[in-house]
Amino acid sequence: MHRKLRFGMIGGGRGGFIGAVHRIAAQMDAQAELVAGAFSSDPKRSRASGRDFYLDPTRVYGSYGEMARAEAAQPRERRLDFIVIVTPNHEHFRPAKLFLELGFNVVCDKPVAFDLTEAKALRALVAKTGKVFVLTHNYTGNAMVRQARQLVRAGKLGVIRKVVAEYPQGWLATRLEATRHKQASWKTDPKRCGASGCLGDIGTHAENLIRFVTGLEIDELCADLTTFVQGRRLEDDGNVILRFKDGARGVLQASQICIGEENALTLRVYGTKASIEWQQEQPNELIMKFADRPRQVWRRGNGYLHAEAVRHTRVPGGHPEGYLEAFGNIYREAFRAIRAEVSGRRPPRDVCFPTISDGVSGM
Amino acid sequence: MHRKLRFGMIGGGRGGFIGAVHRIAAQMDAQAELVAGAFSSDPKRSRASGRDFYLDPTRVYGSYGEMARAEAAQPRERRLDFIVIVTPNHEHFRPAKLFLELGFNVVCDKPVAFDLTEAKALRALVAKTGKVFVLTHNYTGNAMVRQARQLVRAGKLGVIRKVVAEYPQGWLATRLEATRHKQASWKTDPKRCGASGCLGDIGTHAENLIRFVTGLEIDELCADLTTFVQGRRLEDDGNVILRFKDGARGVLQASQICIGEENALTLRVYGTKASIEWQQEQPNELIMKFADRPRQVWRRGNGYLHAEAVRHTRVPGGHPEGYLEAFGNIYREAFRAIRAEVSGRRPPRDVCFPTISDGVSGM
Amino acid sequence: MHRKLRFGMIGGGRGGFIGAVHRIAAQMDAQAELVAGAFSSDPKRSRASGRDFYLDPTRVYGSYGEMARAEAAQPRERRLDFIVIVTPNHEHFRPAKLFLELGFNVVCDKPVAFDLTEAKALRALVAKTGKVFVLTHNYTGNAMVRQARQLVRAGKLGVIRKVVAEYPQGWLATRLEATRHKQASWKTDPKRCGASGCLGDIGTHAENLIRFVTGLEIDELCADLTTFVQGRRLEDDGNVILRFKDGARGVLQASQICIGEENALTLRVYGTKASIEWQQEQPNELIMKFADRPRQVWRRGNGYLHAEAVRHTRVPGGHPEGYLEAFGNIYREAFRAIRAEVSGRRPPRDVCFPTISDGVSGM
Amino acid sequence: MHRKLRFGMIGGGRGGFIGAVHRIAAQMDAQAELVAGAFSSDPKRSRASGRDFYLDPTRVYGSYGEMARAEAAQPRERRLDFIVIVTPNHEHFRPAKLFLELGFNVVCDKPVAFDLTEAKALRALVAKTGKVFVLTHNYTGNAMVRQARQLVRAGKLGVIRKVVAEYPQGWLATRLEATRHKQASWKTDPKRCGASGCLGDIGTHAENLIRFVTGLEIDELCADLTTFVQGRRLEDDGNVILRFKDGARGVLQASQICIGEENALTLRVYGTKASIEWQQEQPNELIMKFADRPRQVWRRGNGYLHAEAVRHTRVPGGHPEGYLEAFGNIYREAFRAIRAEVSGRRPPRDVCFPTISDGVSGM
Repeated sequence: MHRKLRFGMIGGGRGGFIGAVHRIAAQMDAQAELVAGAFSSDPKRSRASGRDFYLDPTRVYGSYGEMARAEAAQPRERRLDFIVIVTPNHEHFRPAKLFLELGFNVVCDKPVAFDLTEAKALRALVAKTGKVFVLTHNYTGNAMVRQARQLVRAGKLGVIRKVVAEYPQGWLATRLEATRHKQASWKTDPKRCGASGCLGDIGTHAENLIRFVTGLEIDELCADLTTFVQGRRLEDDGNVILRFKDGARGVLQASQICIGEENALTLRVYGTKASIEWQQEQPNELIMKFADRPRQVWRRGNGYLHAEAVRHTRVPGGHPEGYLEAFGNIYREAFRAIRAEVSGRRPPRDVCFPTISDGVSGM
Repeated sequence: MHRKLRFGMIGGGRGGFIGAVHRIAAQMDAQAELVAGAFSSDPKRSRASGRDFYLDPTRVYGSYGEMARAEAAQPRERRLDFIVIVTPNHEHFRPAKLFLELGFNVVCDKPVAFDLTEAKALRALVAKTGKVFVLTHNYTGNAMVRQARQLVRAGKLGVIRKVVAEYPQGWLATRLEATRHKQASWKTDPKRCGASGCLGDIGTHAENLIRFVTGLEIDELCADLTTFVQGRRLEDDGNVILRFKDGARGVLQASQICIGEENALTLRVYGTKASIEWQQEQPNELIMKFADRPRQVWRRGNGYLHAEAVRHTRVPGGHPEGYLEAFGNIYREAFRAIRAEVSGRRPPRDVCFPTISDGVSGM
Repeated sequence: MHRKLRFGMIGGGRGGFIGAVHRIAAQMDAQAELVAGAFSSDPKRSRASGRDFYLDPTRVYGSYGEMARAEAAQPRERRLDFIVIVTPNHEHFRPAKLFLELGFNVVCDKPVAFDLTEAKALRALVAKTGKVFVLTHNYTGNAMVRQARQLVRAGKLGVIRKVVAEYPQGWLATRLEATRHKQASWKTDPKRCGASGCLGDIGTHAENLIRFVTGLEIDELCADLTTFVQGRRLEDDGNVILRFKDGARGVLQASQICIGEENALTLRVYGTKASIEWQQEQPNELIMKFADRPRQVWRRGNGYLHAEAVRHTRVPGGHPEGYLEAFGNIYREAFRAIRAEVSGRRPPRDVCFPTISDGVSGM
Repeated sequence: MHRKLRFGMIGGGRGGFIGAVHRIAAQMDAQAELVAGAFSSDPKRSRASGRDFYLDPTRVYGSYGEMARAEAAQPRERRLDFIVIVTPNHEHFRPAKLFLELGFNVVCDKPVAFDLTEAKALRALVAKTGKVFVLTHNYTGNAMVRQARQLVRAGKLGVIRKVVAEYPQGWLATRLEATRHKQASWKTDPKRCGASGCLGDIGTHAENLIRFVTGLEIDELCADLTTFVQGRRLEDDGNVILRFKDGARGVLQASQICIGEENALTLRVYGTKASIEWQQEQPNELIMKFADRPRQVWRRGNGYLHAEAVRHTRVPGGHPEGYLEAFGNIYREAFRAIRAEVSGRRPPRDVCFPTISDGVSGM
């Protein structure tokens, strides 16, 4: 199987944010090519979007159901290797289920589903079909997050005692959803977004990052959820005290009303031997602190990094990589598994990306 | 009354940390001079310390009781204008009470007392005697903290919604108290320190900073206190969710086991109009964030600052001031009140330093 | 002309650095597709590289001459819209000339040629053929560099007085070229690299950045070039004092022996009204300083930025963009001009990328 | 000799900047006390200043000559141990000479004199009298500058190849001297300031810092001096290329017209093994960079620092020290030498402060 992978997309039409991110992330390495899509539930909008992406009009659909039927019937040399789901949360489950059942690999934007029942149903289906299911918790694609994980695994921090994860944003500090802002509109609507607002949207990124880096599992938690903006139906701020299974403690706070904050996701992990700190807005650095030695600043692209961090890098140190490269890394990892699946091989042993299990845990 | 102020010190002998800080802070502007002291409960050690400070040996005492009797009998031209108490927490109340009753103004290291009962008793005594009582919550002496307070007061942040205060340290990550480390020894001993370890020692600084800058009062809280180091009797880590009286929410976390952290006290305040951030380890800057304008970095020593920030500055911008200057600012403010008290005048209207009320609130 | 652009590549085979960068930058937006190439002067290596990129083997060539002949004969629906030249410096001129003469648009890695004579000849040829010629001075593709340029143009800095540009690297601090390191080998070889080492390689980026942002032209200069590494034939360090035509002064320093520096390109511009500072390793921020107001931190992705900065952005603020996105921006701009050229239209008025003129100035 | 040192001051009356700095720096440790002074050439102003400092009016003088006569006649138990000279540059030489000849130790603000002739004459006089002469190049008092020096001395950087020193300020970007601004007035006046403006005032700090940390001596230089502000008679900007005696190269740039810069003195030293960077505005950190290891951030107040850095520290790490503490460190070192001199002992072997030799080199 020596060719670019072919993929289709559900959602992600004109004007959206995350659809464009997925297209760049999936195609930046020229390892895959978008060839089909149902970009909008409005057929006109879907067609216009397909034209934006230079697609063959016969492979642009008015609904994912229509797309499923038509694409399932494509001959082998045109068949999609995977589909990407970038619709609002309440429209993750059904297309994912449908395409998995039709034998397609699936890449799904987070959160994996609307609620825990759906997430568990998907998990069962993935297990049954044996297809690749990728959940794009993109921050785990950062080279220095991979490095952090390896430092923890190698015991360089000792036993983890405390974790502080934060994800403050400011974009929903006013009632943006009242202005027909597309993303604000569905992210604050319990019918499309699910039972949680801020914590479900970005708190899960922080939680996923904790788990990915430290391997710790939450045992108990105490959360204070607040809706600051009048008329909003989902929380836009959350403060959580965490207790992990092995005695570690922590704090997780996320917010969408922190004016002037952009995507200030940070993770600090304190162990008995050393501590680490990573900031999403300065992703090329990882700070390591010790009791009796100078602090260290580990920087992406250097030869002293773990192979796992090196593998998640495209350009040498000092040429900053960012959000799209990290997102693209999730795709690069996924492609290794998808190529294996399409070829009937086992996936490489060291392949590592967020899966349906992360989706279930996040719920 | 045109002369330097004269003061005596209780505690703060050889080998201590905070006593030296108080001496530098009180004397750096050459507005006051140390002339007497009971520096240790060990008379020999007290005398040796007195000699270190070039004091007249007849004014160096073996106990604060002895000092009180002798100094109360000094003639007017030698009488102390104030005394400074820098003993461990359990020895704050009795000397404070004694010297207040003898008519001396008092500067006391925080926390004001061992427990709330003592704190309230002192408050009553201060009210009764009319003496100046200063509690050295030193971080409020920073020029940029003063600026932050003024920005909040002037409504530049709008209504405060969320506050995040942190004070991680790492110095007690191991059982330092088992090594005869003087400060570690009493700060982890409930008999000398009181019912709280980490939160009482540094959490109070974070709480005081919140109150000083925002004026918010805590209504409810949920705290998770942990003792990580085996054999320790007081908590060395605390995570707290805060609810303030007017609907604002917050997080306060403090720790003494965060390896590699020094005194990373930070305060972030998020309002409906703008947000501010201050870091104790970069005290000359205050960051202000907006929804629709570039971030601002306000820097100490500039002409655009509030008069209150200007008044708490010694050198022009770009010549960094630090911990000792901020501590010295508390003394400079206190001196304005003490000079007034000694002269029988009212204190200046704009004088501002932490008082016995802050001490009671902190408890 | 509603389709992806087709391009071929000269150089950039396996193991190189800059070829991969160009491929990602050109294809990340799925606006163009690599379909042909002469990736190495070694035909085997060229074929292997073509296979890496999933190319049709009939369009992978053993030399650029062979490629030129074959590709010039392609029918219209397969004809290349542009070619990308990423060979060592001494192999820029000949393929550029050849393909321009055959009517292809050209994107060329910097420096444009081996010496000034070649550069001027190319300039004449570009003028004569009317083809698009793009020189990838990639740092000018950064959104915040575009913002800086607009601030200067709008007079926000007043009259420019002083400019400081730096580009320290450390990768050639030892004699890396003696280890068969491919890039080190030709970048220190006067036969392949030209008369200048460090200044030609990275000093030109700093010079180009000054010119792009400020519009200033160098009038006089005094340079001190040094070769620190024994046995090396080109300078690996340069310090330059600059005098600009309108009275502004400056310093430019570049180095390849600054151990531990990666790509620390920075630009500071001081005017009579305000100053700006940009750091390539923190490219999402632009710092603006004033005499009597707080500093400002302008951040990529915000609504307050100039349209030109907004146009050079892919994702919202707080999701950092980096080197590849900036490089991709040069391509995005180039595509606007190339699409116009291919369609026989004039290029958009606001299109802005480095051209052959920048190449001549850089020499 | 167990007592506080006594000192007098020449210059430094009301409204000045550097006089206040010297008083705080000299007295912050309560090791010395100001007891006399000729604070202004205007006797009224001098008296008012003396009163500000609570001095005995009989020891406040209208001129340094008057002061010299009277103080030379004081009995031993009242005799000054040293005098501090903080007048404009043209008034350094004569009082320094006079007091040295009368047998007083002298602390002098930099530059040591108006020109090289004066500087050399002072050097001869210091040698002849054997008195302590301290030149307050205060930045060398920073703990992390001391650490940097020790790292270089210990060979941790290998052979030094390149040095970059910068000192941009913005306070003279407009013609401040036309507004009767006291400091601007004499610092731009060749009669009071000497032949150099910006370079003499702050370029010398940068030069001194290079020498102190690296031990390198300048062999050749090429300087471009500019006066940007119309009507000013001394340069307000300077760019200098440096060649050092052992083959190292460097750049030094200083400016007073860089709007928005405060005191952004920085030093970067690049060696064959490692590099260091220090920023005066973040003085508690020293960054060390390597070819193949994570960067290190050395922080003041930690146990891993050299004894020389530890000795130049007052408070533990994380409690930032600043400009005044560094300045005070120069005084603390000086006091060790002055106490020795007054007691007829040799100075301690490890005592280290800038001397008359630094003053001559700076010229």
